[in-house]
Amino acid sequence: MRTWICGSLLIGALAAVVLPGSAIANEGAIKARQGYMQVVLFYSKPLFGMAKGKVAYDAKAAQAAADGLKAITEVPSKNMWPKGSDNSAFKGKTRALPAIWEANSKVGEASKAFKAAAAKVAAEAGKGADAMKAAVGELGKSCGGCHKPYRAKEF
Amino acid sequence: MRTWICGSLLIGALAAVVLPGSAIANEGAIKARQGYMQVVLFYSKPLFGMAKGKVAYDAKAAQAAADGLKAITEVPSKNMWPKGSDNSAFKGKTRALPAIWEANSKVGEASKAFKAAAAKVAAEAGKGADAMKAAVGELGKSCGGCHKPYRAKEF
Repeated sequence: MRTWICGSLLIGALAAVVLPGSAIANEGAIKARQGYMQVVLFYSKPLFGMAKGKVAYDAKAAQAAADGLKAITEVPSKNMWPKGSDNSAFKGKTRALPAIWEANSKVGEASKAFKAAAAKVAAEAGKGADAMKAAVGELGKSCGGCHKPYRAKEF
Repeated sequence: MRTWICGSLLIGALAAVVLPGSAIANEGAIKARQGYMQVVLFYSKPLFGMAKGKVAYDAKAAQAAADGLKAITEVPSKNMWPKGSDNSAFKGKTRALPAIWEANSKVGEASKAFKAAAAKVAAEAGKGADAMKAAVGELGKSCGGCHKPYRAKEF
């Protein structure tokens, strides 16, 4: 027991010395972007539910969800993705692949496409089930623009 | 081992039967509002750091953080607070006190005051350290408008 406590204290003390400010900043950024995604999920989930026919289409509910989704995509998120905050440096904490920060990364374009798709959903969500469904289909594809090439399958 | 597995399966089966759809919806709402708060923290933290003199004032950085903060306060969050998603129903998952949903709750006013304070910070953050500091001081007070009366000290 004493050994265990001493070991833990030692690890804690080492972490305090070794962990640079940027590691703490990266952890904050990871939490922020994951939080951001929780908000995206909260507003996109009912839309996907309606688009898949799991939930009955409701113009008012669809519009409210779409407005929320559009609003969160308008919150700047670039600073939540500092170089070095990838899944090799932060194992078990993020699924973000280092490819995001490589020179040939298409993550900027994918992010813009997602934002545009969310704006389209906000413009179409209240115009009937078919219009909503088409826009939400495009939204789903735009999610894949980042999640397929730049997100590890597991933590 | 078999007993443990059978017990776990039984608990799982019971949870599936007992947990109503609203409980799942409430959990999603709790995650969304906690995610929302992570974004608030990400943008307010550097502002509080500058206001307290822990970080040197930088007009551009202050403005960027304030713009991000203002944008997140413009994301609708009311639906992230469904009645029943309090810390008595969701122990260990939320610190939100049931008083939030009581008839005499002042949470709506507190929320509006927070949003107004964030807008003020966005208007003042780039105008020099003193202007930023005054606005961030008001912002801090507005956080307390919800956190003091409506948030439990511990999970």
